[in-house]
Amino acid sequence: MREVIVGAAQLGPIARDEPRTSAVGRMIALLERAAERGCSLVVFPELALTTFFPRWYMEDQSEVDAWFESEMPNAATRPLFERARALGISFYLGYAELTIELGRERRFNTAILVDGKGCIARRYRKVHLPGHAENEPWRAFQHLEKRYFEAGENYFEPADVLGARIALAICNDRRWPEVYREAALRGAEMMLLGYNTPLHYPPAPEHDHLQAFHNHLVMQAGAYQNGMWVVGVAKAGREEGCDLIGQSSIIAPTGEIVAMCSTLGDELAVATCDLDRCAEIRANVFNFRRHRRPKMYPLLSTDPDEWRPLHE
Amino acid sequence: MREVIVGAAQLGPIARDEPRTSAVGRMIALLERAAERGCSLVVFPELALTTFFPRWYMEDQSEVDAWFESEMPNAATRPLFERARALGISFYLGYAELTIELGRERRFNTAILVDGKGCIARRYRKVHLPGHAENEPWRAFQHLEKRYFEAGENYFEPADVLGARIALAICNDRRWPEVYREAALRGAEMMLLGYNTPLHYPPAPEHDHLQAFHNHLVMQAGAYQNGMWVVGVAKAGREEGCDLIGQSSIIAPTGEIVAMCSTLGDELAVATCDLDRCAEIRANVFNFRRHRRPKMYPLLSTDPDEWRPLHE
Repeated sequence: MREVIVGAAQLGPIARDEPRTSAVGRMIALLERAAERGCSLVVFPELALTTFFPRWYMEDQSEVDAWFESEMPNAATRPLFERARALGISFYLGYAELTIELGRERRFNTAILVDGKGCIARRYRKVHLPGHAENEPWRAFQHLEKRYFEAGENYFEPADVLGARIALAICNDRRWPEVYREAALRGAEMMLLGYNTPLHYPPAPEHDHLQAFHNHLVMQAGAYQNGMWVVGVAKAGREEGCDLIGQSSIIAPTGEIVAMCSTLGDELAVATCDLDRCAEIRANVFNFRRHRRPKMYPLLSTDPDEWRPLHE
Repeated sequence: MREVIVGAAQLGPIARDEPRTSAVGRMIALLERAAERGCSLVVFPELALTTFFPRWYMEDQSEVDAWFESEMPNAATRPLFERARALGISFYLGYAELTIELGRERRFNTAILVDGKGCIARRYRKVHLPGHAENEPWRAFQHLEKRYFEAGENYFEPADVLGARIALAICNDRRWPEVYREAALRGAEMMLLGYNTPLHYPPAPEHDHLQAFHNHLVMQAGAYQNGMWVVGVAKAGREEGCDLIGQSSIIAPTGEIVAMCSTLGDELAVATCDLDRCAEIRANVFNFRRHRRPKMYPLLSTDPDEWRPLHE
């Protein structure tokens, strides 16, 4: 057995005027609780330092940039890094990243995995940005991730932390089976995911009552079909008039939910994750080497503009 | 609305000594019931003409070949073809196919989609063969699909039948998210699947209690993540001492089960499937053109022996 005790550290809403120091304080409180329960890994949500700002259309770039971090750790987050290091806890943290690369400013929806010594073991930039790029005033609220962020270029390569192969993804990534599979083919044993998921989806509100079902469906399928642990952690509750789903979960390689938050506020769900259980699935029904047929899925990795006709 | 009324025509067990004419008679009875309920498409199980013979190790090839059909339709199945044509019903049928191709005998686990005029609109040969190729006497029963069948070479290209784009797959195929996705990228609106799934899985019996959960999980995820209808149909019940799961289901593009069998015998479940509902999903959350990132999943279509190192 290779056991990792994992804490899914769900956050309730963060108000628009709530400073990062307050959000960090709430995370440190969850971290302390996780330490008491023996956790060596704690997962926080996507964009965990501020309110979910892509719900507003902003024309002034300096107003947008106020939601971004240009270094990590920084003054606001250093107390979290230091407390985690003192406790020897690794953690996943989502935030808006502003960086200078290729001679220009670049902005990503980012998550990092920080190891027990306070070092960033993996920086992941969200690949699947949902929403839209232009203001759509008919919506009750915007979802402007495609405006404020560039899409990340990441292959879901896992990091080696805590003796485990751990991959990162963010929010909408979890809906795509490609994400879990690409990570699993690279040896991932655990997938960490933070999310901010509105209960109301303006383009297809007829499915709003299915949000919680879909949230679990995609993560449970991703876990089972790849024989990996999945940890999905929400920022939840009514945030600036927008309801966000909760039900942060830890899911076994069998697809079973083994721990779940049942409030929409700050809450910790804990599970002991035996990494050796991945083999129960990966050595049998989903033995990739033995059973996958990659040549039969030619379109999966191919840009549609590059498709060649292929017939039966 | 483009509505197709679909019947999931589950079969109970077929005994080893039950002749094909008997199985066909049972299928015709289900077909008649489906006609009364207005169905224009009926889905029968995998290997629907005989007992699930890969559970036995056979050394004599003529004994093996007795389970195969060397033409379709043939004397035993012609009454089904004729009755379906008279009723104007399209149907999916699974059987063991023996054919001469490339100058040699070839054997496949095959499903066909027969249109309302009695023509075979699509022949699909199972891509994902589960089980093993050698006799393993420690098992309570064998699962020798890798011995008795060649793996099919199919790209999950849908057929145009009933004004719909309909793809075929078989049993173990349904566990692989690649199958639904490859079909969806080719425009499939509905996936038809027959299965024979033992309740007991000898290599990992610790998951036997999860068989029904996994059966639904993979089909529901496949439906939702691709915005397609999924029809999964079992041969069910205690067959020659081996328990097969049932719960044949029709699943909407939302991932919801909208009709299900609740016995382990011959039973028909019916649902009205509006193909236009696929767009609710495919034009929004799973708008592939807008949101998929094929370049970020390079390994999905690549044979592992051809992998090139790719790092973040």
